[in-house]
Amino acid sequence: MIDKTFVFGHTNPDTDSIVSAISMANLQTELGNNTQSCRLGNINKETAFALKTFDFEAPTLLEKIEDNSNVIMVDNNEFGQCVPGIENAKIKMVVDHHRFNLKTDEPVHCVTEPVGCTSTIIYKLYKQNDIDISPKMAGIMLSAIISDTLLFKSPTCTVEDKKIAEKLAKIADVDLYEYGEKLLKAGTDISDYTADQIINIDSKPFDKNDIKFVISQINSADVDGVFTRKTELENSIGNEISKNNLNLYVFLVTDILKGDSKALVLGDKSNIFEKAFSVSLDNNTVLLKGVVSRKKQVLPKILENL
Amino acid sequence: MIDKTFVFGHTNPDTDSIVSAISMANLQTELGNNTQSCRLGNINKETAFALKTFDFEAPTLLEKIEDNSNVIMVDNNEFGQCVPGIENAKIKMVVDHHRFNLKTDEPVHCVTEPVGCTSTIIYKLYKQNDIDISPKMAGIMLSAIISDTLLFKSPTCTVEDKKIAEKLAKIADVDLYEYGEKLLKAGTDISDYTADQIINIDSKPFDKNDIKFVISQINSADVDGVFTRKTELENSIGNEISKNNLNLYVFLVTDILKGDSKALVLGDKSNIFEKAFSVSLDNNTVLLKGVVSRKKQVLPKILENL
Repeated sequence: MIDKTFVFGHTNPDTDSIVSAISMANLQTELGNNTQSCRLGNINKETAFALKTFDFEAPTLLEKIEDNSNVIMVDNNEFGQCVPGIENAKIKMVVDHHRFNLKTDEPVHCVTEPVGCTSTIIYKLYKQNDIDISPKMAGIMLSAIISDTLLFKSPTCTVEDKKIAEKLAKIADVDLYEYGEKLLKAGTDISDYTADQIINIDSKPFDKNDIKFVISQINSADVDGVFTRKTELENSIGNEISKNNLNLYVFLVTDILKGDSKALVLGDKSNIFEKAFSVSLDNNTVLLKGVVSRKKQVLPKILENL
Repeated sequence: MIDKTFVFGHTNPDTDSIVSAISMANLQTELGNNTQSCRLGNINKETAFALKTFDFEAPTLLEKIEDNSNVIMVDNNEFGQCVPGIENAKIKMVVDHHRFNLKTDEPVHCVTEPVGCTSTIIYKLYKQNDIDISPKMAGIMLSAIISDTLLFKSPTCTVEDKKIAEKLAKIADVDLYEYGEKLLKAGTDISDYTADQIINIDSKPFDKNDIKFVISQINSADVDGVFTRKTELENSIGNEISKNNLNLYVFLVTDILKGDSKALVLGDKSNIFEKAFSVSLDNNTVLLKGVVSRKKQVLPKILENL
């Protein structure tokens, strides 16, 4: 088993993290390498809908990685968003589309591009290696692109993401926009979630200049409905802040129909957020017009103002 | 000028750092991007021989980079081995074959592979983009591969490096082995260098767990000749150690004919080196049989033992 390579995305996995692990493990298997796809957390509803539609099992849950294991990191390159033990694993490859925050002792095969979705890059790796993409694999890879680009509405979406999504829709034989809206809506139902679960659906921790902060994001077709639970959400966020000594917690509720986000912001460094967006929080909240991307529209602004 | 992108390798540039900057800037120019190749230090004798043979000028010397400049990092991804100001530049792309030590605020286009030479990767980027490689460009790219792989004798050399070197030799119309030996020998003449110059021909600083160390390397066809200047070299190394508060300085004299290295090791943490290689230093020196690669055979062993 020593030669086995484990492939996984980030903690609090979104659709791209799960799908990239599956599609990358499949590509490596086709290339003759002993590879296993894994996940670093629960499957969210959107991902469950995609997996069910295209008849896939969820990857194996990985809670810790053994020393010296071979790993491929997809949709992520930061140890802080990765599995415990990653510092002592052998990173064989990184395929990603996020900012860089990686340290290794040895050279690594790394393919990263500033595109909207990791699956877009993996599609190109299949092509480069002359490996066919099956209709069901095309279906989940398409789902990842729809998810990460909010059906092409996110500013992170590139011409290439859209072009490749169209090709994948053809291979999967689905109507891109009809399926896309169904998929996004499947991800927005939070009625049976506790506030703790909601803020952890897609939350990412960051750290710079000794400031610890989290940006959490959910998609919604009913933003006002989410904010009827504001007090409950504030309590959960307050607990996270004390538990992890955070200075700032940004919870974004992104309106998938309008393409805006309403932010709920807490922490002793909330003023950094206000400065970053030139806004004043009203009861800890503010509407950010046209903001849908954590990576491109929120994270860099906060980092600049630390 | 704001759109101009600057391409450069590491400080104390070797042949690959200079050639990667030239060949990458040329590729970007062919693709319609306003790009300028730069160097972060003096041209060594080996590089000068390659540039002269294939009729190239040395790239522009860059002493500092302005805030928000667009840059492409080649043959390097560590700010500690890069130009002053790099922290505030916009990194558009990284093409490299070293370990990772990179932090960025935004996603980056990154192509790194664990091959022997950056020019091997750049060759593939030319192919992917359907850009022809001219005979003279092939000549310097070939020189970089010969230099980094010690004419295929280094354990960092991959099948791909060799295959691509053979293709480049054909395009450049040179005899690979005859030219290769001439090139390597051109780099070994240190008779008119001061000891300070010798230890800085190809020296790289590293830093881990608050241990600061340098690994410097020269190639030689006459290792004993180099060690007749041992006292002089020890004084220069001692000065570097005090000036930069180093804990360890490893100076490797690599025998390009035999494929061994003789190490001269100083610093209060010399025991880390002894432990890493299970050797005892005799008068600060030891012969490392079969060791020619800093990146693959020396750096990881030291890092493991910090």
